[in-house]
Amino acid sequence: MGSIHVEFRELSPSEFFYRYREIAGYSNPTRAFYQTVKELIENALDACDSHGILPSVKVEIEEVDVKKLHYMITVEDNGIGVSPKHVPKAFGQVLYGSKYKQRQTRGIFGLGVKMAILYGQVTTGKPVIVITKPIRSKYRWLFKIRIDIKKNRPIILHKESWKDENGEHGTKVSIVIEGDWFKAKSRIHEYVKRTAIATPYAEIFFKDPQGRTFHYPRKTTNLPPIPKEIKPHPHGIDVEMLKALILTTKTTNLLDFLSKTFQNIGEKSAKEFLKYAHLDPSIRPSKLTIDDLSSLAKKLKEYPFKPPKGNALSPLGEEIIAIGLRSVLEPEFVATVSRKPSAYSGHPFIIEVGIAYGGKIPVKEYPQLYRFANKIPLLYDEKACVMWKMVSEINWKNYNIEFPAPLAILIHICSTKIPFKGVGKESIAEVPEIEKEIRKALREAGRRLRKHVERKRREREAMEKIIAIAKYIPEISKNLAELSKASKGKGVSSKELENILYSLLEMKAEKMGIGSINIKQLIKGKRRKALPQPQRKQSKKQLDLLQFI
Amino acid sequence: MGSIHVEFRELSPSEFFYRYREIAGYSNPTRAFYQTVKELIENALDACDSHGILPSVKVEIEEVDVKKLHYMITVEDNGIGVSPKHVPKAFGQVLYGSKYKQRQTRGIFGLGVKMAILYGQVTTGKPVIVITKPIRSKYRWLFKIRIDIKKNRPIILHKESWKDENGEHGTKVSIVIEGDWFKAKSRIHEYVKRTAIATPYAEIFFKDPQGRTFHYPRKTTNLPPIPKEIKPHPHGIDVEMLKALILTTKTTNLLDFLSKTFQNIGEKSAKEFLKYAHLDPSIRPSKLTIDDLSSLAKKLKEYPFKPPKGNALSPLGEEIIAIGLRSVLEPEFVATVSRKPSAYSGHPFIIEVGIAYGGKIPVKEYPQLYRFANKIPLLYDEKACVMWKMVSEINWKNYNIEFPAPLAILIHICSTKIPFKGVGKESIAEVPEIEKEIRKALREAGRRLRKHVERKRREREAMEKIIAIAKYIPEISKNLAELSKASKGKGVSSKELENILYSLLEMKAEKMGIGSINIKQLIKGKRRKALPQPQRKQSKKQLDLLQFI
Repeated sequence: MGSIHVEFRELSPSEFFYRYREIAGYSNPTRAFYQTVKELIENALDACDSHGILPSVKVEIEEVDVKKLHYMITVEDNGIGVSPKHVPKAFGQVLYGSKYKQRQTRGIFGLGVKMAILYGQVTTGKPVIVITKPIRSKYRWLFKIRIDIKKNRPIILHKESWKDENGEHGTKVSIVIEGDWFKAKSRIHEYVKRTAIATPYAEIFFKDPQGRTFHYPRKTTNLPPIPKEIKPHPHGIDVEMLKALILTTKTTNLLDFLSKTFQNIGEKSAKEFLKYAHLDPSIRPSKLTIDDLSSLAKKLKEYPFKPPKGNALSPLGEEIIAIGLRSVLEPEFVATVSRKPSAYSGHPFIIEVGIAYGGKIPVKEYPQLYRFANKIPLLYDEKACVMWKMVSEINWKNYNIEFPAPLAILIHICSTKIPFKGVGKESIAEVPEIEKEIRKALREAGRRLRKHVERKRREREAMEKIIAIAKYIPEISKNLAELSKASKGKGVSSKELENILYSLLEMKAEKMGIGSINIKQLIKGKRRKALPQPQRKQSKKQLDLLQFI
Repeated sequence: MGSIHVEFRELSPSEFFYRYREIAGYSNPTRAFYQTVKELIENALDACDSHGILPSVKVEIEEVDVKKLHYMITVEDNGIGVSPKHVPKAFGQVLYGSKYKQRQTRGIFGLGVKMAILYGQVTTGKPVIVITKPIRSKYRWLFKIRIDIKKNRPIILHKESWKDENGEHGTKVSIVIEGDWFKAKSRIHEYVKRTAIATPYAEIFFKDPQGRTFHYPRKTTNLPPIPKEIKPHPHGIDVEMLKALILTTKTTNLLDFLSKTFQNIGEKSAKEFLKYAHLDPSIRPSKLTIDDLSSLAKKLKEYPFKPPKGNALSPLGEEIIAIGLRSVLEPEFVATVSRKPSAYSGHPFIIEVGIAYGGKIPVKEYPQLYRFANKIPLLYDEKACVMWKMVSEINWKNYNIEFPAPLAILIHICSTKIPFKGVGKESIAEVPEIEKEIRKALREAGRRLRKHVERKRREREAMEKIIAIAKYIPEISKNLAELSKASKGKGVSSKELENILYSLLEMKAEKMGIGSINIKQLIKGKRRKALPQPQRKQSKKQLDLLQFI
């Protein structure tokens, strides 16, 4: 018999995440590098656009010690800054963060940047350096902080402040980590590029350790509306949330509690609901037993309240998706779908899909997938993600696509809570409601793609027919000319007849939807000239069609 | 400009995991059901085999309220039990658990079963019921516990104990959850089946909510050696671990500290290392600065110490893998490889691989993959796992396999620390050292598979040749007989000649490695009779070969 004395102990959250750092994406020096850059950029963007500021973000990666693989990553934003009283815990205590609210942000509560700091600390021993100037403050603050892992508390190594009245604001964070730049760089560049696609209202500067600088200029000053904080929706309520809400409510009866606490419950619907649930409207919420709460939660879930509002969400919008796909992939066709808000467990979410086809998209065995969640690009663990699952479940043959094909798909989910599978935020769980919405969006975009492909096929067939006929025109004209000469003496010339027949065919072509073309030039093989002068520029589609001659 | 007042707060670990329960696998009522069963079974097995007890585990799932989808999951083991003083926290406080040790177990520290309890609590409001009798105790204890999520502390709703001197011991845990049995059942059955493959020394009873009972009897009483606790290996040390080790050491100089704290460092190697690192052997460890520690950690990592010992690990072994694959898949061929211990970040690990081919394995486009980690079957997120990555990177054509093919692959990793990607323990991170070992094991098993496939091909070709010749024998015999009659008068009969030629061919066949066959029967199409009487049973291989006639 083995050891039977089992010792027990408690682990602090920092210690837990330090031991299991792989679950936050810190599994090797390549992935850790990527993850650190990602967490810092997401924090920077959240500090701006969540507060109505057009983001301007500077990312710099410098070599500190090549032999040891030590790199310093610095990200600077023009966001609202962090109040000096919160800096130590916000950067030195795991599970401490800006108050959890029901609204759309990029981060996971109190973990992201701390994991990067922890990783830097355990691999290089170096503290994080935070320089911040809160909005409306006259001072700029500098902190050097280390995390006491056993206690999960910040250790302030250095703190200073100086007057700085230039009106700027924002935060600059530097972390030194052990990382493998040469293996990580392609993903990091890709990450920055995709971030620029999803946030065209942000300006991003990126300087890599090889000294190269990349500038992603702001493409629009149209800042999406600030995500609002919303009341919880009754369909997402479980017993624990109910308890927590009752603990903090100022209401003294169930009717008031329901109509003041939840989204989509007013006094009228609260009354109707209470009748349905056989509950006394005048009962004090705090008097409810666990069994009452369990039953109330169940009833709240099943009662047909109106679905959650999506007005707290900030989707990309069809225009940004189309611009992004066109500028990056240069496809021949784009279809975008932005679904109406839907909900899972009371959390509203919106699914957006863009399908790009043909043009310069490389022909592959599978669709190229661009995943985004609350505007974060997701690059790792693609095959574990519900988005991949839904794309691979579609029978693309139904949409006239036979692989290998030049197909790219962008999917974006925005929600007050993204159900990530890991704290590394790289793949999304298989939530049935989300699956359904993605499927619908893919199908809708797919139907438009099918129409496009079908129309292209028909146009090509029509063009083939026209050309087949056109090739006989010179001979027919000659014969007809001779015939007319024989019968009428002089008759019509072969050239004239040719021109008449060409014109007839051109009219036919226009009716068939090919547009106005010059068939004479066409059969001479002069594709460009076959298109009428003023139209040439716009008629890339027609030029494409003419390729096969 | 938006809101600039940011409120901050701290989250307890329970609250964190409750909010982000998807990262532990609780993303929907199907997956949550599976996850709960899994956590309870793993806890049960750990309570037995980690302490030298042959596990006997009873799993029962009962309907509590079909309309609400409430089910009670009860798992009972004959393990060492839990001391009543630890029960409340062990079942009611997240990140509290049996002391973290450098040894092979199934669980993740202090999280698994608590996540199941939390999930049950928030979906049904029901507490966990724990009945436990510690080994060598005369009392059996019953607890009903709820978790205070905000404080991350247990609330004991009920506690009682009674005398029970029957010598039994073990723990029985019941959790009521909201789950979707009909969607979850196939995975849960598969999970139990695969658990039985990896722990043939355990006996498992499983009663499902449909009232069906399944019994997986113990197939061997050969309990694998109890995983030992081991000293940390110097290659896995980071600055934080070094600090923690120095805080608890009783040694007073660096030489002693190194030679008493680490695996594979004795006094001699400690001296050599200190010389290499330019460090004073007599310095007090507690006097080292952060920079000293950072440099020491770096030096410990790069110095060529002997690799970690694998003697603390408990692999499956080639025999168990072969038995498992043969009994479940009934293949024609099995190759198993158990690699020598290796290490990543100072954690020892062993990779084991089994390849099964042909027989009753269904022909598919991809290999069927059976993944195990510390004897836990992994069923979800296959495509996100390093094991899938390595299998899909192999060019199977090099091993004479062209897909679709009947190929199944089992991979097992055991380690004192499995680098899971999520706390749901379903996929393993891409750690370069692990990738390398899996690749090597797959290649080694692949080479044996290639030989098998190659030999089969040669045998088939040889058999085809033999039959082609055999078919001419009657005619040749007739001609020869006539020839001999003509020259010698009576001569040899056609029948005799036939028999001689058949015998010659049978000798030839035996030399070609086909084994002893009766060619006369063979060309008559009587495959079974073509094999010599005593051999018939064993000669399934030969029978297979004869199929194509």
